[in-house]
Amino acid sequence: MRIAIASGGPAALPEWQAHFQAFDPAIEVLGWEAAQADPAGVRYALVWQPPHGGLAALPDLRLIISAGAGVDGILDDPLRPAHLPIARMITDSTPDVMAEYVLSAALMLLREGRRMALNQAERRWDILPAPRRMQDTRVGVMGLGQLGKASALLLARAGFPVSGWSRTPTELPGVRTHAGVAGFDAFLADTDILVCLLPATPATQGILGARTFERLPAGAAVINVGRGSHLDEPALLAALDAGRLSGAVLDVFETEPLPAASPLWSHPAIIVTPHYGATPSRRDRAQHAVQLIHLAERGQPLPHLYDAARGY
Amino acid sequence: MRIAIASGGPAALPEWQAHFQAFDPAIEVLGWEAAQADPAGVRYALVWQPPHGGLAALPDLRLIISAGAGVDGILDDPLRPAHLPIARMITDSTPDVMAEYVLSAALMLLREGRRMALNQAERRWDILPAPRRMQDTRVGVMGLGQLGKASALLLARAGFPVSGWSRTPTELPGVRTHAGVAGFDAFLADTDILVCLLPATPATQGILGARTFERLPAGAAVINVGRGSHLDEPALLAALDAGRLSGAVLDVFETEPLPAASPLWSHPAIIVTPHYGATPSRRDRAQHAVQLIHLAERGQPLPHLYDAARGY
Repeated sequence: MRIAIASGGPAALPEWQAHFQAFDPAIEVLGWEAAQADPAGVRYALVWQPPHGGLAALPDLRLIISAGAGVDGILDDPLRPAHLPIARMITDSTPDVMAEYVLSAALMLLREGRRMALNQAERRWDILPAPRRMQDTRVGVMGLGQLGKASALLLARAGFPVSGWSRTPTELPGVRTHAGVAGFDAFLADTDILVCLLPATPATQGILGARTFERLPAGAAVINVGRGSHLDEPALLAALDAGRLSGAVLDVFETEPLPAASPLWSHPAIIVTPHYGATPSRRDRAQHAVQLIHLAERGQPLPHLYDAARGY
Repeated sequence: MRIAIASGGPAALPEWQAHFQAFDPAIEVLGWEAAQADPAGVRYALVWQPPHGGLAALPDLRLIISAGAGVDGILDDPLRPAHLPIARMITDSTPDVMAEYVLSAALMLLREGRRMALNQAERRWDILPAPRRMQDTRVGVMGLGQLGKASALLLARAGFPVSGWSRTPTELPGVRTHAGVAGFDAFLADTDILVCLLPATPATQGILGARTFERLPAGAAVINVGRGSHLDEPALLAALDAGRLSGAVLDVFETEPLPAASPLWSHPAIIVTPHYGATPSRRDRAQHAVQLIHLAERGQPLPHLYDAARGY
């Protein structure tokens, strides 16, 4: 049984091989170029942004496994074999790892993490006003899938008033939920920190944009842990510079790695992190891929498959 | 009724006056110099680090109100009228405000906040290993007074395994507690993030020092929100540079503001914040001071008085 890997580049291959070896030595792990040169028997592919046409060049392929929770880097390939299932990488721990990122990001916004870092860099002791309280800061989570639910529940448990918004009505204990286009503006009006955990679909593209920012209370902040395509960067910069928004924590970007020339890096109200929200370790991802392969080999249903009708 | 203020300097006086006016217009609020020049009827003093001898020059003084939770800036005055009660500034919200700082500091350590800030400053996209999890990171809180208790409970509610250590045995739901000298080393051995919320007494001076650091698991981290005197700075720097400790978040310092020349500012594993842990707003402090004055005027017991025998 053979799997081709396009995640982390050639430098990551030995690590992937060691992890797969540990979980199932019967699986042969090939780098992307090696698999292209010798594709026979390559039934699985673990990929993030595979080179266009590469998946189509694997005639025995039966399952595409995304190396992350999103699949847009795979859908981007116009030549991909669209009849094959795509499994999203949602390991058992992914939702909770993401939730901990979101909690830490919300607290950094509450406790002026960016300003503290800039002051420390300049050795400046700047007495700040008394901090905002969790109980007075309403967090709104857009997207109530596995990751959004876990994040909303952790934020509420820690003491934030939390609301949630999703395409279809969802119930969540301790969280006020809104749904659909009709519920969106009311959701925004009660949100001091807006968390984006939506999937990347045509309908959600640019949702973190001027229209949304205008409907948040003045001084609200934004956390984007969805996808880079959700964020209209010029609109964010304009809203921050106008004082309409007070801050942002961004973990995902249209282009990753974020180019050195991006104005986001140096903005005094933006915290940039390197797509660090919920990345499981390679070990956890290899383990999850092996579990998927075993299910597929036994003809059993696979969890978290991409649904083209839903868009994620 | 008159109160003299030595907190925030002359620049803060108008704000203090406005807040006291709002809570009890019968209280006349004097700046420190004005009170020294005309001390008759000054029965109260709200002070942080009053000039030595200044309290002794107020013959009608009956209560000293500390502008913060600690009293060491008052005890430092060798001429202070030692027979007068000192009320510590523990407002209703102080413990929870502190707890939120401690939670945010613990999450910054978990999520590499310092490294993220340094990378952002250099526009460096540095892929990090999968983050540590809250459930795998044991937080140990030293000091289980009001602030320590609130912090331990919030950390536990958010999902950290939490233990506590105090001079005398204390019980706290969901928190494993240790007590006294006999329990100290066992407490340290199970602590990945050590939080200092002890009072400043001769017995706790330098407690964040080499002996303590050696008894923590390798790679542990430290949060100091107690007092600057708790920390042996050279020992911390040595432990970080030797890789014995992995990081520190420091909010209090031997000398405040922290001097620009301090090596703490630029250390790659230390986050410096400007005594920001639990400062209530001036409004909240004025309100609390007015409550204390009303109690004192009615001859009723005052909460959170400094106890010389206990040392805090």
